[in-house]
Amino acid sequence: MRQWTLADRPLGRPLAETDFALEIAQPPQPAEGEVAFRTDWLSFDPAQKSWMENIAGYVDAMQIGEVMRGSGVGTVTASRHPGFVAGDVIYGPLGWREAGALPGGQLKKVPEGVPPTAALGVIGTTGLTAYLAFVEVGKPKPGDTVVISAAAGATGSIVGQLAKLAGCRVVGIAGGADKCAWLVEELGFDAAIDYRSERVKSRLRELCPGGIDVMFDNVGGVILDDCLARIGPGARVVICGAISRYNFDPRDPAQMPAGPRNYFNVVFTGATIQGFLLPSYEALIPAAEQRLAQWVRNGALRYREDIQTGFENAPRTLMRLFEGRNFGKQLLRLT
Amino acid sequence: MRQWTLADRPLGRPLAETDFALEIAQPPQPAEGEVAFRTDWLSFDPAQKSWMENIAGYVDAMQIGEVMRGSGVGTVTASRHPGFVAGDVIYGPLGWREAGALPGGQLKKVPEGVPPTAALGVIGTTGLTAYLAFVEVGKPKPGDTVVISAAAGATGSIVGQLAKLAGCRVVGIAGGADKCAWLVEELGFDAAIDYRSERVKSRLRELCPGGIDVMFDNVGGVILDDCLARIGPGARVVICGAISRYNFDPRDPAQMPAGPRNYFNVVFTGATIQGFLLPSYEALIPAAEQRLAQWVRNGALRYREDIQTGFENAPRTLMRLFEGRNFGKQLLRLT
Repeated sequence: MRQWTLADRPLGRPLAETDFALEIAQPPQPAEGEVAFRTDWLSFDPAQKSWMENIAGYVDAMQIGEVMRGSGVGTVTASRHPGFVAGDVIYGPLGWREAGALPGGQLKKVPEGVPPTAALGVIGTTGLTAYLAFVEVGKPKPGDTVVISAAAGATGSIVGQLAKLAGCRVVGIAGGADKCAWLVEELGFDAAIDYRSERVKSRLRELCPGGIDVMFDNVGGVILDDCLARIGPGARVVICGAISRYNFDPRDPAQMPAGPRNYFNVVFTGATIQGFLLPSYEALIPAAEQRLAQWVRNGALRYREDIQTGFENAPRTLMRLFEGRNFGKQLLRLT
Repeated sequence: MRQWTLADRPLGRPLAETDFALEIAQPPQPAEGEVAFRTDWLSFDPAQKSWMENIAGYVDAMQIGEVMRGSGVGTVTASRHPGFVAGDVIYGPLGWREAGALPGGQLKKVPEGVPPTAALGVIGTTGLTAYLAFVEVGKPKPGDTVVISAAAGATGSIVGQLAKLAGCRVVGIAGGADKCAWLVEELGFDAAIDYRSERVKSRLRELCPGGIDVMFDNVGGVILDDCLARIGPGARVVICGAISRYNFDPRDPAQMPAGPRNYFNVVFTGATIQGFLLPSYEALIPAAEQRLAQWVRNGALRYREDIQTGFENAPRTLMRLFEGRNFGKQLLRLT
């Protein structure tokens, strides 16, 4: 059984393959109350870099030598927990290892009628973040103009479809003509801006003549600033992530990227900039999961997966997120 | 009769005396529905520089050659409006002129039992901004820790006293030992930080061990960033002004000051950054005025005035605000 452990902290610099070490280990035996599993899929998310860096303090620190944390889908091989039997398809914080054992309380069964990988994306943390950040912080109203950065990403693409369900006009910002075409032609966005070939600021002026009502940001930097220049009265700016800020060392103020120069527009508009972190909305998760699963079953929510293969490629697969190379939810198939 | 007119726009640079021209004019005669007045006091506010620059577009543009806009207190000399008689003490947008005439609907009588200059500060736009921004955007709860920048300024000093009335712990940030002593000894702030002689970041860490619940900002820049580094769960950051941003040309992106680097802490805290502009809260103004007047009458709200004299000193008096030289509400006595 192979596993990837944390070898170095990528503080203030891009991820490197040498941040991880591939080890051989004995598959753990399940203790009382635990479930043993074989890992089938791993899920990748930018937050994993923060866990490796051990910043911000909102999750327990990862130690050097610890098995790399990450969500996955697996198949139960042996169970000493009454809720699971061998053969069950489960998901949870499996970690970067080919097999393992975890307390049954940390695992969930994939709902009926939903593809297993959806549990890592559209009905998992990604979908829950999209749904709860958009409705609870974005507070969309029918007729609102919603702008989404990283719109072709796992979270942004769900937010855009939820915004259409909520009766909003949706403009996505993404990198590349293929992603922009997918947003408009497949997901029903009203428009898309290709930040690699278009001037975001002037395109926003054309596409949002009445101002932006909800801005959903996963990027930060210049794109956030361009959007802040266009916010309308009472706008809600949802700060969900900041992919542009991942490669600096927060202990070193000299490395800190600039903040949004246009923040002061909140005064002229009475707008709100608010952050979102999923654990604060725990009580709302079960109902949100049910809604998301139903929309997946009836085809109202579409999603795209970027599937890499081979356990040995886990570090390289995580690095794709920071190179903007993934198109859809980043997954790794092990078997 | 003398008046000051706008001679130049101070875009991207500090104010200069040459931005204004002193002229001699005939005192206007009141038309039907108008009230003629003699100006007794003028009031000064940082927003006046924005009016001169004609940025942001939230007030009508000021034209070169126009009488400089500003609030004042005056005495009615002749009235062709049923609501006023000669001798009434009134306040409103009198402008920088020794005498004038305005429609009666633009003027108010100073309430009974309140000093006339209070109408320019604690029960005028300053007090209304302090009250409505603090309660409607800051949403204070008893026990909250409230941090105020420019705390010895006209707005900040009222916010701090309102925060004490609301059962909060109040920390003010101000420049100079005399201002800090006044906040704690005269106004009842729990603590004050002198940003000229103390390290704001480490003092905030000592004084707000549980994090900041409400941050009331009139400064921006490094002080806002230091406060964002200390915000607690669910904090409300009220953006009311940004004295640190007044000397740049918003048409020139290269001049734009940096935004708050620590804005991303809203994600870890679920905090809200929201702007405030008084006109959006118009419906709440009459009730707020009554409360403020009552607190002034019964001594619950204290205030300090920085009184300069002589109409010819109006430009220099406005410049004091941007040099941090005023201590209390900046006023000019004409007579």
